[in-house]
Amino acid sequence: MRWRVTVQESDANAVHALVCETGFFSKSEERIAIELVEETLSLGKESGYEFVFADVPGNPGRLLGYTCYGPIPDTESSFDLYWIAVAPAEQRTGLGSSLLHETERLALLQNAKRMFVDTSGREQYTPTRNFYERMGYREEARLVDFYAPGDDKVIYAKTL
Amino acid sequence: MRWRVTVQESDANAVHALVCETGFFSKSEERIAIELVEETLSLGKESGYEFVFADVPGNPGRLLGYTCYGPIPDTESSFDLYWIAVAPAEQRTGLGSSLLHETERLALLQNAKRMFVDTSGREQYTPTRNFYERMGYREEARLVDFYAPGDDKVIYAKTL
Repeated sequence: MRWRVTVQESDANAVHALVCETGFFSKSEERIAIELVEETLSLGKESGYEFVFADVPGNPGRLLGYTCYGPIPDTESSFDLYWIAVAPAEQRTGLGSSLLHETERLALLQNAKRMFVDTSGREQYTPTRNFYERMGYREEARLVDFYAPGDDKVIYAKTL
Repeated sequence: MRWRVTVQESDANAVHALVCETGFFSKSEERIAIELVEETLSLGKESGYEFVFADVPGNPGRLLGYTCYGPIPDTESSFDLYWIAVAPAEQRTGLGSSLLHETERLALLQNAKRMFVDTSGREQYTPTRNFYERMGYREEARLVDFYAPGDDKVIYAKTL
């Protein structure tokens, strides 16, 4: 797999398509995913967002998966994994693990020491939480009723 | 005490002066405090930030204290207390408690159910953490080495 880390114009649409296709994210989350791309297209490094894209060979408008991560403002060496998404057909192929490993490798090169990722405590997110645990992340915190009554925020962290 | 909740032009400077005066915040935190005011001056309600100001009677360019809070995006009814600051001369007078009570009252009117506030686990913040505990906040989470090695993020929450 060859990764791409520079954002290109087609990524706003490609990310939208990918995120929809997973059937996993809310409309509001879809909008945020696109905004992170657009902000990086207009601001460059200033946006604070970094990306790892898994392209479809020969099809520049499509993505197999991607991550969005970056340094957490006002921290010395903590990074946040803002987003990870993998196309349904590529799930269970190891692409998610490879994407996250590459993301961690690049974060380490930027002196990251700790990677944080937020997720939901709802049943729907059990596979997501299991994925993070397999990748060496530990549940560090659970904020009861954070997203909504009955929907906790779970914060995972890994020392890189 | 009469509170003011509408942001005015002089608040950017007044917030800067107040935040400096406390001697408690870093340069980067000072910049963020001002940005929250400026963003609200330019965007209004769209900014997502709400304020409670304690004015100095007869001196519109000065503040005794203030809070900045607002609904957390993509949550149903969780609010964040982004900022609370009280001028040194007003500390231990009950102004901080009154400001936070008023903030909670206004958040409740906006259907807030849970108020969250982040702080640091460092020794310097012991009075801050004690203040939140007196106000009915509970430590819900501690993210080890979040701000820097040896500097944890502590998340307090209160059900309103």
